Amino acid sequence: MTASPSTAERLAALRAELARRGLDGFLVPRADEHQGEYVPASAERLAWLTGFTGSAGMAAVLPEEAAVFVDGRYVLQVRQEVDERHFTPFHLLDKPLDAWLQESLKGRRIAYDPRLHTQSQVERLRQVARLAGGEAVAVADNPLDAVWRDRPAAPQAPAEAQPLELAGRSSADKRHDLGARLGERAIGAAVLTLPDSIAWLLNVRGRDVPRTPFVLSFALLRADGSVVWFVDPAKVSPELRADLGDEVTVASPDALPGALDGLRGKTVLVDPASAGAWFFDRLGAAGASIVAGDDPCQLPKACKNAAELAGARAAHRRDGAALVRFLAWLDRQLPEGVTEAEAAARLAAFRAENERFRDLSFDTIAGSGPNGAIVHYRVSPGSDRALRHGELFLLDSGAQYQDGTTDVTRTLAVGAPSEEMRDRFTRVLKGHIALATARFPAGTTGHQLDALARRPLWEAGLDFDHGTGHGVGSYLSVHEGPQRISKAPSTVALRPGMIVSNEPGYYKTGAWGIRIENLVAVTEAPSPTGAERPMLAFETLTLAPIDRSLIATELLSPAERAWLDDYHARVAEAVGPQVDAGTRGWLEAATAPLD
Amino acid sequence: MTASPSTAERLAALRAELARRGLDGFLVPRADEHQGEYVPASAERLAWLTGFTGSAGMAAVLPEEAAVFVDGRYVLQVRQEVDERHFTPFHLLDKPLDAWLQESLKGRRIAYDPRLHTQSQVERLRQVARLAGGEAVAVADNPLDAVWRDRPAAPQAPAEAQPLELAGRSSADKRHDLGARLGERAIGAAVLTLPDSIAWLLNVRGRDVPRTPFVLSFALLRADGSVVWFVDPAKVSPELRADLGDEVTVASPDALPGALDGLRGKTVLVDPASAGAWFFDRLGAAGASIVAGDDPCQLPKACKNAAELAGARAAHRRDGAALVRFLAWLDRQLPEGVTEAEAAARLAAFRAENERFRDLSFDTIAGSGPNGAIVHYRVSPGSDRALRHGELFLLDSGAQYQDGTTDVTRTLAVGAPSEEMRDRFTRVLKGHIALATARFPAGTTGHQLDALARRPLWEAGLDFDHGTGHGVGSYLSVHEGPQRISKAPSTVALRPGMIVSNEPGYYKTGAWGIRIENLVAVTEAPSPTGAERPMLAFETLTLAPIDRSLIATELLSPAERAWLDDYHARVAEAVGPQVDAGTRGWLEAATAPLD
Repeated sequence: MTASPSTAERLAALRAELARRGLDGFLVPRADEHQGEYVPASAERLAWLTGFTGSAGMAAVLPEEAAVFVDGRYVLQVRQEVDERHFTPFHLLDKPLDAWLQESLKGRRIAYDPRLHTQSQVERLRQVARLAGGEAVAVADNPLDAVWRDRPAAPQAPAEAQPLELAGRSSADKRHDLGARLGERAIGAAVLTLPDSIAWLLNVRGRDVPRTPFVLSFALLRADGSVVWFVDPAKVSPELRADLGDEVTVASPDALPGALDGLRGKTVLVDPASAGAWFFDRLGAAGASIVAGDDPCQLPKACKNAAELAGARAAHRRDGAALVRFLAWLDRQLPEGVTEAEAAARLAAFRAENERFRDLSFDTIAGSGPNGAIVHYRVSPGSDRALRHGELFLLDSGAQYQDGTTDVTRTLAVGAPSEEMRDRFTRVLKGHIALATARFPAGTTGHQLDALARRPLWEAGLDFDHGTGHGVGSYLSVHEGPQRISKAPSTVALRPGMIVSNEPGYYKTGAWGIRIENLVAVTEAPSPTGAERPMLAFETLTLAPIDRSLIATELLSPAERAWLDDYHARVAEAVGPQVDAGTRGWLEAATAPLD
Repeated sequence: MTASPSTAERLAALRAELARRGLDGFLVPRADEHQGEYVPASAERLAWLTGFTGSAGMAAVLPEEAAVFVDGRYVLQVRQEVDERHFTPFHLLDKPLDAWLQESLKGRRIAYDPRLHTQSQVERLRQVARLAGGEAVAVADNPLDAVWRDRPAAPQAPAEAQPLELAGRSSADKRHDLGARLGERAIGAAVLTLPDSIAWLLNVRGRDVPRTPFVLSFALLRADGSVVWFVDPAKVSPELRADLGDEVTVASPDALPGALDGLRGKTVLVDPASAGAWFFDRLGAAGASIVAGDDPCQLPKACKNAAELAGARAAHRRDGAALVRFLAWLDRQLPEGVTEAEAAARLAAFRAENERFRDLSFDTIAGSGPNGAIVHYRVSPGSDRALRHGELFLLDSGAQYQDGTTDVTRTLAVGAPSEEMRDRFTRVLKGHIALATARFPAGTTGHQLDALARRPLWEAGLDFDHGTGHGVGSYLSVHEGPQRISKAPSTVALRPGMIVSNEPGYYKTGAWGIRIENLVAVTEAPSPTGAERPMLAFETLTLAPIDRSLIATELLSPAERAWLDDYHARVAEAVGPQVDAGTRGWLEAATAPLD
């Protein structure tokens, strides 16, 4: 716990502003108006007010108390970052915001900025506030912004076109296709608030936030296939504007409210799960007829076309070479000592040498020993430690290349691993192989396949507490929907072209962690003789050796051994020609068939 | 298609009655006011009006047209049973009632009997009618009943107490436990409309409908643990009344409306998924505060206690003996010729010899050759056929014993099976074994396990189009919730004591069908060394040989072979002492270890 003098001042300033407006309280989410995992500095309201820098959370401020709600990932971090004299930190599962409001609201009015909360969240919030005898009220202007004196400017990074040979489909083709589908549903226009939807629809990328090539902006897609793109004009060069063509109108974000007002009498699609409640309020007041439904770009974006899949394969070949160069370097370097942070930096440097490299796709997770057991560990100066003999090193990393997004986890033994480590690693590997080799009928969802990756752990009375697979974008977000592979029910079937991660793990709290993650693409499976139904399968995209010293070979079936040897042969073939002779020697040993 | 003179007359009489009341149309569901699979003759409204006798369906009558909607099981049967000059049959998936109303309602008023449709169904119906520019209106008295001159009397079968040594818990214990839980939720009373809930709560059984020992009735459970049981007093003997004790008041069903009116100002729990909309209408008008939630008996009823599990094991041992006697008989009888109906009758006769036998638990499915490929086949004089050499015989049957309900499917080769039959049978068996041997953490739901039973079929491009497992009652319904094992999402975790079926299959349309079904109970799994989480597993209850001639042994793993041999040894040990020497000889051969 560190006392920050400014926390008290900031909180007092916000409370004074609320009092001035006749409000009792205010909610400050980490989310910005695009609900993304990364937000620009100008939208880091939660960090400014509380000091908490995690990727998800919410503060609630009332006159005499204030709280910060975080999920299990951030229980330790929040206590390190916030001043507990001013903010009480809560684990969302122990004390959800709903329960806190029930106890604390006591008939008062709590305000929220309707641009920062989705319609679904607001509907729930209003209900909870009513049950607490109080009221949740939307504010037109954010009171925190009014007292945030040193607020950074909004990003103005230039947008750039994603070349057609990488996007695989022209924006016009996508716009006309989706517009026609809106027309079939008698919908006049769709509001787009998700930056990845807009990036995909317009074939543009940007640099407004770290780790994901977003152009923060909004858009209206009309049934005729035209788009109004509400984006800071400074981000759009004349060349890009010409590239976008006549059917895409670039408008200032200031023009958005007026444009929504102009939809009076029109039927407008808005996604209540991702669009701010402000859109519903504004369109409702304007007299538009609102259809609440899924963002129309999300599903087609998730099903990568042939060019995007070719890009993903190429990106993974290069990414595999960077990872192999790193692994060979690490083996040489270990005797001289390597810390987690040094390892992460070195891996990033190898990746950055590639000319299509744009950024990491997320902050690297480099956890040695007990740090490996923290599922969402991020190395910091206070936590950094050297890789030690007899420990495991869990390395989860990825990059944004212009032709594809990568995300790979390898777990390495530093020195000789214990029997327990080898047993657990091999169970995780068996689960990974079971999912990688699954064949399943069209229509299958991720919740049907999840157990395949867990069963070898279940047999030993073990499990892991995260999903088995998340969707991955095409030079877009490393976490995207709507598909997923997890215990939780999913209504979205896996479809050809979807990219998902395959990442079972096992975590021994306080000791070490194991995860084996490859990205896979859903493909149409070849039909065996006598097959009656169209079946799907996975093509593994990631190309990097899996540590043979951690495999208890006797636990693998002949089919599992064959999969691993085949996979390693693929890795050697794809990566070998890209690396120097010394690294190639290391690679050959690392990918040799199991004994 | 058979022309029935009375269909026209019945339909005309109903339409005249509707016209007299100023109504344009009427919905006639197969369901009665308890939403059960079996209904008494007095509630067979759909069959009376249309001739269709399937276990699920709905008729919609408008002045100039009428339709019957059925699911995939009944597509053929409905065309055989209804007069298509008067009723158009539709497959629910091709043309749901919603879509038909959208086209046909045309702004008119369609009536429904709110006792026969659940609240959830009515909410949807009202919305669909509004979208069609019309209206759905509840009727106080059923207009079909008004014109049903020869309607059978409602059943008055005597109720009987389920002995405490079989029920395992006294009714008072159950009532006070559930009542206290209502109190914790500030609920004054719960409406019970499901006969299995009432049978479980009061430890009573009856004979009002075939195949399930229900006492058709309603009940009100109060937070103090007392119950008002709305049941025809003719069903309740003085002995049973004494047995029920002072806290259970027997009242006439006629007293139900008044009792609901008396709940003004009270908070009342009603299940919108199973209770008729009439309850919501009446309680709302009475000024009660309605809490829509799950029937409180369903989950505790599903988790069988030790006495119920002991009863289930005993019932399955005796049921296994009946099945083995039948199988040995069939082997001897086949040279002389056996039809499906003869086989079903003979099996029923063997079961009926047991003193605790009460009824079959459902109509036996005895499908030879192509009939085996019809998932819900019921033998009829028109479909009955002899078991023929080179064919498969699928036999799905079960019984109600006073100590337990059984449900078992065996598939038998008549003569030498083909290679394809053996391959498919062995894949189904591998799926069955995968589920039977699954270990899974507490909290796992059926949708997570379903794929284990399908994977060996998926690998060959095959699948089956039904769920893998349904819940089974304890001398109650052979299909009960809330748990299930299927592709569809389930929010109810599997818990110790739950009984579910394990019944993967494969169906070659027009040729033959395979299903292997055992009932299993969820148990706490022993913890292997190093286990970290409480794990669950299945105990197989059903005891009957699996046809060894259909097993392609080379497709089984050593562990799968060991499971089958162990299972067969259990069958021989449990059943052998119950059968005569001749049958025992047959059993020993049928349960010998695989070659």
